[in-house]
Amino acid sequence: MKYLCVEPGCSMNTTVNRRSRLVYMDHAATTPVRPEVVEEMLPCFTERFGNPSSVYALAREARVTLEKARRQVADAIGANPKEIYFTSGGTEADNWAIKGVAAANRKKGDHIITSAIEHHAVIHTCQSLEKQGYRVTYLPVDEFGRVDPASVEEAITDKTILVSVMTANNEIGTIQPVAEIAKVAHDHGVPFHTDAVQAIGAIPIDVDNMGIDLLSLSGHKFGGPKGTGALYIRDKTRIGTFMDGGAQERGRRAGTENVPGIVGLGKAIELAVAEMPEKSPRLAAMRDRLIKGILETIPETRLNGHPTERLPNNVNVAFRYVEGESILLMLDALGIAASTGSACTSASLEPSHVLVACGLPHEEAHGSLRLTLGSRNTEEDVDYVLEVLPRVIERLRRMSPLSPERYA
Amino acid sequence: MKYLCVEPGCSMNTTVNRRSRLVYMDHAATTPVRPEVVEEMLPCFTERFGNPSSVYALAREARVTLEKARRQVADAIGANPKEIYFTSGGTEADNWAIKGVAAANRKKGDHIITSAIEHHAVIHTCQSLEKQGYRVTYLPVDEFGRVDPASVEEAITDKTILVSVMTANNEIGTIQPVAEIAKVAHDHGVPFHTDAVQAIGAIPIDVDNMGIDLLSLSGHKFGGPKGTGALYIRDKTRIGTFMDGGAQERGRRAGTENVPGIVGLGKAIELAVAEMPEKSPRLAAMRDRLIKGILETIPETRLNGHPTERLPNNVNVAFRYVEGESILLMLDALGIAASTGSACTSASLEPSHVLVACGLPHEEAHGSLRLTLGSRNTEEDVDYVLEVLPRVIERLRRMSPLSPERYA
Ligand SMILES: Cc1ncc(COP(=O)(O)O)c(C=O)c1O
Ligand SMILES: Cc1ncc(COP(=O)(O)O)c(C=O)c1O
Repeated sequence: MKYLCVEPGCSMNTTVNRRSRLVYMDHAATTPVRPEVVEEMLPCFTERFGNPSSVYALAREARVTLEKARRQVADAIGANPKEIYFTSGGTEADNWAIKGVAAANRKKGDHIITSAIEHHAVIHTCQSLEKQGYRVTYLPVDEFGRVDPASVEEAITDKTILVSVMTANNEIGTIQPVAEIAKVAHDHGVPFHTDAVQAIGAIPIDVDNMGIDLLSLSGHKFGGPKGTGALYIRDKTRIGTFMDGGAQERGRRAGTENVPGIVGLGKAIELAVAEMPEKSPRLAAMRDRLIKGILETIPETRLNGHPTERLPNNVNVAFRYVEGESILLMLDALGIAASTGSACTSASLEPSHVLVACGLPHEEAHGSLRLTLGSRNTEEDVDYVLEVLPRVIERLRRMSPLSPERYA
Repeated sequence: MKYLCVEPGCSMNTTVNRRSRLVYMDHAATTPVRPEVVEEMLPCFTERFGNPSSVYALAREARVTLEKARRQVADAIGANPKEIYFTSGGTEADNWAIKGVAAANRKKGDHIITSAIEHHAVIHTCQSLEKQGYRVTYLPVDEFGRVDPASVEEAITDKTILVSVMTANNEIGTIQPVAEIAKVAHDHGVPFHTDAVQAIGAIPIDVDNMGIDLLSLSGHKFGGPKGTGALYIRDKTRIGTFMDGGAQERGRRAGTENVPGIVGLGKAIELAVAEMPEKSPRLAAMRDRLIKGILETIPETRLNGHPTERLPNNVNVAFRYVEGESILLMLDALGIAASTGSACTSASLEPSHVLVACGLPHEEAHGSLRLTLGSRNTEEDVDYVLEVLPRVIERLRRMSPLSPERYA
């Protein structure tokens, strides 16, 4: 099908072959649930629907199912099943980790160290603790979005009760030197939390090798259902409860367990980690072709994030003189689903706090585009984006009042 | 099939016809998800999987879906859709309501009024606030489990910031005089929260008529999925956030929305409320036949909870000289799923705090059985329970060291 631009006043004088299938390149925002995962979940809705806290056969069955999923999650990160606590998602895991450690260690200290480029689930949680009198250091990052372990060493005091630095960033894909940061924390007897929401299924995670005491993960980022997640809590870590109520999750996270969701989370993480050795290099090759193609064909464009310490599925580029929002709308009309950065803030007019922390001027932060790949993406999808994107940017620059003469 | 008791040393000398189908009478613990609900949810897992916070077509579709569910929930309780906030369940809704109001009104006061028979999601949340310096009054109840609105009047002070009394109790089914209690709270300018988790779909709820400012509900109690719930927050009610992070739910409840779950919640509540006029009287008739049958055929037995102000599906009876746990195990072997009270505490050895608050001696609290009906239960199920239960109790009394001579 020939696609003709339908926007009023559109002057796009080239037509492109709009693909009949949606090119979904926003896997960092969310992923479709895998059919194998849905299949495992289905019987838990209608037939094996017992409340795991009850005492009859139907309930015992639900408990067995839960414990299987707990082992699947534990195995995926090298943990012990009894250190896995199911939550309603990555946001809850982050809230619990940080608020829980803060509350349990109030007598020991009031200082938390995190980075300036954490997800809002961490940043806003820290800000809410600041209102309660805690002190928070938001570590700066370099131009590639990396935290320097030496800066943790400098920030740490005898009042520090937690260091929380994400494994990999959701906007720019930068992978942090988590093991080194954890080591600094431990040298001072401080527990280390990492938000691994974007890292699971993309890079190998081993809580022991990496020195992780608390780890957040979220099902819908790797083919599992939305509204599911887990917090890994290393044995003996001092942490309070976040959700009070019944005695579920060994008395640490109340609320009737989302059995179908947890089953889906377990299955999805098992599949994601098993397929990683094949999938990650494949996506990384597509990612590199996208980055190279974009930087070569579109002038005044730069890569955001780290050139090599980068999630295999993440492309993030800044285009001068254009607005990310306009790029997204035109891509949407052309059947490409992408993002400017964090999905959670896409409704706000603030530039990305991540790009600003990396030193991008506001205008460039506003003109950034994130493409995040998934297993269903094909080389043809990459071709299509590389065909369409230069025209979109060219057209937007032609229309933009910010553009210099040469784009007129 | 003739069922013969297989327990070691069993002396049950009568055989009963074990029914081939499970007789599930624990609907207060959880309900199967209705097939119509699963059907609505399914496309949201694999096809309409967009993150509602994104900006492309797939995401807009998800937002539309969310808003439809929000309206369904609002309509079910006479609220405005913009007063509905989705949560991960009843427990989160209770935690948020109480901790959120406490935090937002700290300057105004430090006193919360609740009842002694609330669900643990309320009681333990209040206890955790007590550790932070808040003061909590746990109002007593009468022998039927009713809170006297006059006792709220007596307890209230100018430091009171919240009154929280459940609409109907999950163990004994007692319905509270919520409108009267709300009126007392409002006369003193105090907001009123109610945990309506057990009441939705069972009795009519109207937040305006009843004077409710905050209301908790949970999807899996009325044919929706586990891990879904909502908090109703009346416009202008002062409440802080509980889950910090992204700007979802109008900036008040962070975390990627559980779209399939929310869709299921919406559909389930719509069906539950639509069917209530037919279903509730039908279940009430079965309930009354069960109560009458049990009290007439089994000696030294009493009804727990209120004789008339009672959920249509709730039966709760105390049998002297027996242990609830043993009743459950024998019923389980006979294909009947029931409960001693709250599912959440069934693993603990504590007697039910609800029955103790109603004045039952510990032994009788321990010997209580809860049967809660649902739409799939039939008159034959009732017949079967009335056939089996007297023999189970008789046998247990014969074995019990607590029983007097006459049961030997
Ligand atoms: C790095 C990171 N942390 C936390 C979250 C929040 O997880 P959830 O969407 O499960 O609430 C996300 C995604 O939204 C994320 O990318
Ligand atoms: C009265 C009451 N409140 C709160 C809850 C907790 O809800 P959820 O199971 O969704 O966490 C329950 C059930 O477990 C309940 O019966």
